[in-house]
Amino acid sequence: MSELVGSRSDMANAQRERAVRSDATRNRDAILQAAATCLTDDPNASLADIAQAAGVARITLYGHFSSRNELMTELVHTSMARVEAELASVDLSGDAWHALESLVDVSWQLVNSLGVLRGVAEQALPAEVMHGSHADPRARVEHLLARGRADGSFRDDMSIAWQTACYFSLLHGAAAEVRAGRVGEAEVRDALFPTLRALLQASPER
Amino acid sequence: MSELVGSRSDMANAQRERAVRSDATRNRDAILQAAATCLTDDPNASLADIAQAAGVARITLYGHFSSRNELMTELVHTSMARVEAELASVDLSGDAWHALESLVDVSWQLVNSLGVLRGVAEQALPAEVMHGSHADPRARVEHLLARGRADGSFRDDMSIAWQTACYFSLLHGAAAEVRAGRVGEAEVRDALFPTLRALLQASPER
Repeated sequence: MSELVGSRSDMANAQRERAVRSDATRNRDAILQAAATCLTDDPNASLADIAQAAGVARITLYGHFSSRNELMTELVHTSMARVEAELASVDLSGDAWHALESLVDVSWQLVNSLGVLRGVAEQALPAEVMHGSHADPRARVEHLLARGRADGSFRDDMSIAWQTACYFSLLHGAAAEVRAGRVGEAEVRDALFPTLRALLQASPER
Repeated sequence: MSELVGSRSDMANAQRERAVRSDATRNRDAILQAAATCLTDDPNASLADIAQAAGVARITLYGHFSSRNELMTELVHTSMARVEAELASVDLSGDAWHALESLVDVSWQLVNSLGVLRGVAEQALPAEVMHGSHADPRARVEHLLARGRADGSFRDDMSIAWQTACYFSLLHGAAAEVRAGRVGEAEVRDALFPTLRALLQASPER
């Protein structure tokens, strides 16, 4: 009998613990979601603003993230995990030009939607955190470039490191121009792939 | 006689004033020069470090610049005045491709030498200060692109705003890659113009 009581009480404890953990997870997700929205709307949004938007007490937010920088760092990691998941779903097999076009399309959507956040994070966090977050997208592009030059699709008289640098400079530069209101989002969407194609196709000498 | 004494004393006063002013100018220049060097070596250099490197007392530095941000803002303006002077000296007449090559060469030297400083300033100053400082280089590129497409040298199926965005994205992106140690400076110097040429020449359809 005492064993049964013991196991009932264990079960209740376990259930309570699970409930607390799942509340905690829900709060944490809500805070990260609210942080993304608030900081995109207003890069100077305070932790108090973010707690309010997440519908949690400020003390709850501090329980999860002890500082603005800790929250931002986690936001960068969460965003990059999302980026990684979406990029991993792009089919990069088959014709290298088609693969490039698909990758550029998805990448642009991600960079454009996460662009403000990236700017905010760059202002707040050490460069190592930002660069460290970027290894996988870079490797994916390098791999596609290597494949495309191996089958003769892309020019091979410039280094892959340089072409990769151009790819990301154009993506992120375009997002900055859109944010500054100098170029329209629709224009970038149309122009990015033709621009990269011009960059990567064997160049006729003038 | 009293007039003569008066005028001698006036002359002495004027000389003293000129000496004080020229000391002040010299100190100010030394502080800005030291700030550029210190911040390039260590983006976290303190005002005390900068005063020491300039060979002035800390109180003298604060007499010229009341805060780190004020010093950084002046540094951005001074640097952009130097950029503007050097770019203005580039001969942009004649063949549009040659003009572009000359402009890219000088621009790369400037962006590369001022790159760290730019990064530091971007972290410290509001985006308006940084963007405001950039109007003239942009106008010069836009003007050259317009001339080159008018005479049939450059492709005209993408907007000048977009091509200008690409120009600056590649320049500044390349500087960031060099600072991150992913691409060598010599490679960028060799690759920038061919890359921009690929981007701007009429593209053969695949």
